[in-house]
Amino acid sequence: MSAYLALEKKFRRMNAIGEASGVLGWDMSTVMPAGGAEARMEQLAALSGVQHEILTSREVEDLFAQALEDKGDLGSWQLANLREMQRIWRHATALDGDFVEAQTKAGKRCEMIWREARPNNDFASILPAMKEVLNLTQQEAKIKAELFECDTYDALLDHFEPGGKSMRIDAIFDDLAAFLPDFTQAVLEKQASETAAVMPDGSFSLKAQEALGREMIKAVGFDFNHGRLDVSLHPFCGGVPDDIRITTRYDEADFMTSLMGVLHETGHAMYEHNLPKDWRLQPVGSARGMTMHESQSLIIEMQASRSEEFVSFVAEKAKVAFGGQGTAWAPENMQRIYNKVKPDFIRVDADEVTYPAHVILRYRLEKELIKGSMGLEDLPHAWNDGLEDLLGIRPPNDTLGCLQDIHWYDGAWGYFPTYTLGAMAAAQLFASAKAAVPEIPSALAQGNFGPLMGWLNENVHAWGSFLSTDELLTTVTGHPLDPQVFKAHLKARYLDV
Amino acid sequence: MSAYLALEKKFRRMNAIGEASGVLGWDMSTVMPAGGAEARMEQLAALSGVQHEILTSREVEDLFAQALEDKGDLGSWQLANLREMQRIWRHATALDGDFVEAQTKAGKRCEMIWREARPNNDFASILPAMKEVLNLTQQEAKIKAELFECDTYDALLDHFEPGGKSMRIDAIFDDLAAFLPDFTQAVLEKQASETAAVMPDGSFSLKAQEALGREMIKAVGFDFNHGRLDVSLHPFCGGVPDDIRITTRYDEADFMTSLMGVLHETGHAMYEHNLPKDWRLQPVGSARGMTMHESQSLIIEMQASRSEEFVSFVAEKAKVAFGGQGTAWAPENMQRIYNKVKPDFIRVDADEVTYPAHVILRYRLEKELIKGSMGLEDLPHAWNDGLEDLLGIRPPNDTLGCLQDIHWYDGAWGYFPTYTLGAMAAAQLFASAKAAVPEIPSALAQGNFGPLMGWLNENVHAWGSFLSTDELLTTVTGHPLDPQVFKAHLKARYLDV
Repeated sequence: MSAYLALEKKFRRMNAIGEASGVLGWDMSTVMPAGGAEARMEQLAALSGVQHEILTSREVEDLFAQALEDKGDLGSWQLANLREMQRIWRHATALDGDFVEAQTKAGKRCEMIWREARPNNDFASILPAMKEVLNLTQQEAKIKAELFECDTYDALLDHFEPGGKSMRIDAIFDDLAAFLPDFTQAVLEKQASETAAVMPDGSFSLKAQEALGREMIKAVGFDFNHGRLDVSLHPFCGGVPDDIRITTRYDEADFMTSLMGVLHETGHAMYEHNLPKDWRLQPVGSARGMTMHESQSLIIEMQASRSEEFVSFVAEKAKVAFGGQGTAWAPENMQRIYNKVKPDFIRVDADEVTYPAHVILRYRLEKELIKGSMGLEDLPHAWNDGLEDLLGIRPPNDTLGCLQDIHWYDGAWGYFPTYTLGAMAAAQLFASAKAAVPEIPSALAQGNFGPLMGWLNENVHAWGSFLSTDELLTTVTGHPLDPQVFKAHLKARYLDV
Repeated sequence: MSAYLALEKKFRRMNAIGEASGVLGWDMSTVMPAGGAEARMEQLAALSGVQHEILTSREVEDLFAQALEDKGDLGSWQLANLREMQRIWRHATALDGDFVEAQTKAGKRCEMIWREARPNNDFASILPAMKEVLNLTQQEAKIKAELFECDTYDALLDHFEPGGKSMRIDAIFDDLAAFLPDFTQAVLEKQASETAAVMPDGSFSLKAQEALGREMIKAVGFDFNHGRLDVSLHPFCGGVPDDIRITTRYDEADFMTSLMGVLHETGHAMYEHNLPKDWRLQPVGSARGMTMHESQSLIIEMQASRSEEFVSFVAEKAKVAFGGQGTAWAPENMQRIYNKVKPDFIRVDADEVTYPAHVILRYRLEKELIKGSMGLEDLPHAWNDGLEDLLGIRPPNDTLGCLQDIHWYDGAWGYFPTYTLGAMAAAQLFASAKAAVPEIPSALAQGNFGPLMGWLNENVHAWGSFLSTDELLTTVTGHPLDPQVFKAHLKARYLDV
């Protein structure tokens, strides 16, 4: 067996073990009894320990050396696979086992304290544990930056967005930050001058919500022979490409949030399921990164499902499903609800227009914290100042401010920008999809995602990690990530220009 | 770290990986969509591959050599743990990886054909695949028998019932086989002379069945903070000691089967959960073997739950749960249903009195097949003759005969005797429990399993694999496994003597 094929075998096993962890993670969030947590932690630790040992073995190191020497024998997908293997291997071998264990422990401890600190509005209580997490994150960034010969922030970003560069993100986000305040103001004024949105009244039976959710998931193209829909506290899309586990949560007083939520998760699910089947369990067959992943959920949720065409379709479906009556169920009203803009403190509840401000704030803050140009003591104040600058509102406390998101406390630094980069990529891909397949909007008006999904399968999903994010966008849309398309989308949707 | 402690660490990881497989197995049988099967097989194969590699590494071999040399430093539980580690290691290292893979493949292929052959009554179609399975089983038996210096059948039995010896089983089963035909005849005559059992009428709502099942599971002492109850095609008790997954299936026309079924599985569950907590993930902290495991399900189902005292209690509960009326719901009638004896063809539907005949038949046949003193071509005829000898009825076809059980087709040879050995151990333990704790029957009449479970925890569960099955029985009951106690139980329950 060639060294390359031996590596494929190693990665295949390693990724099958990763899939096992994925299913166990779903189980933990949906059906596991609380008393099973300790045993589950040990199971997951054992699996990730095995993965790490496979990856950092001397044997794999030798195989890489040999495979690189024999590169000439490989086809283009094999070469791309080897490149992706190396990327994963570089991350895994950069840090020694004790360091990773210390990081995992610090993140777990900090997250536990955070679960109390957030509702108690007690940033001071988490400061020591968070300092430990940040300290280890800074060390990781420094070690990897030297090895990868890049900026410290980019060394962390690379884990979530391979090849991502903060210099580019700075430019994109600065452009957006300059555009958004005036734009948001104009949208708020426009919406204030129009008929106000009315929330449909009701208690909406969970059973009817689930049935409608399932119908919409199927409309997107999801195959329940390869996945499930369940309930969890925090909705997610988990499982493995051929057995995808979507979750949501239902609120009897509001069916609209869960409905859009499952459409969002279905976007993630379709990407995973349609990744190139010939490269299952290989790095090149995996999703490109968090920007592309988020673009796939947001193209379904924000671009397609909140379009006038689809909202009209789903308004009628919902009206029938819940036996609704009156103007609240009119398509125009649903449209107003789903596209209502309102600056607020919590990122996960934010609308499409104000969401980027939340992300830009976090991105700028985490860059400073990682660099060390700002101390953690200054975070609450800087957070509140930053939100006020970007959105014109100031959080009254840290629960609604810097304590709201789990990411930093849990050790996920360098993740935040991918949310908004994904939103921008979604706008860009949707524009190109509509240009290539003009019947996409009229199909959506019939609840038919087929034309859009066909285009996405072919132009995004099937590529896996063969290209970089920008290469893929350039190949498919003619440009690398371009904030102008996103801005044009916002202007068209919210100001009719 | 001492060699012994290093081995503990290896086994801890290996067993944590085994636990991960356990949860994935539950998932596969309860919630996994059909399209996830292929990926799941690969995940499970990767996990068992890793386990096998840990166990068969040169490092572990060296650790065993060193640990045996330093034996003098170990406490009694550590010594027992080392002994159990060695037992597992001997089984794992006896066969090389290619052989095990060939066995797994042959078993899977044969099982697939069996799934068609059984409903089609087509033994001929499965004969070639079954020959392959048996051939590999015979090779395994021969290899292990030489290594373990024991009989070929015992080499297989040891996997399910550590230290089990067919010579002892022969004697026990011959004794039972001599007793059962006349006894069964006497019971049939007695029951024929008495009031006939009447099945309660109804469609029994699945929701009410589940609620009653949950109440009874809790009555046994099961803690839903450490487990779940779900539905699967074939009921089982899976998961891990601190997160136990019981399953059942419901039939709207019959609540009594599922009710006794969940009590049976809860017996397994209590054993697993109450295994010594200090030895979690270590071999000595695991269940002793299939005989003891089955004894724990049967002591709850057959001994306690079908006792006059408990059936009276549960009859009233069921009457209320399903709004039942009339004599069918009277305790005496429930008693008659739950203790009705009727020779029939299918093992899994058999009553307590006729069940051993099914097991003795399979045990005798598999011994001959493994030894090679009978060919597989002769199996259908020998099966039918054997059942006629033992039970007085002759299967009209192989679907109701030698095609009914998955075990042999799937590669599980040497398993069958543990069902009846477990039933006998259950009778023996229950007799001792009642002698030690006289209030057990009156507590069961109140639906209170506490006194029985307290005794079982202390005398059985907490021992894990510290002792052998016979040592444990001798310590707790004063005798090794003794067929007389089982026979006395049958005579008391079915003939009032």
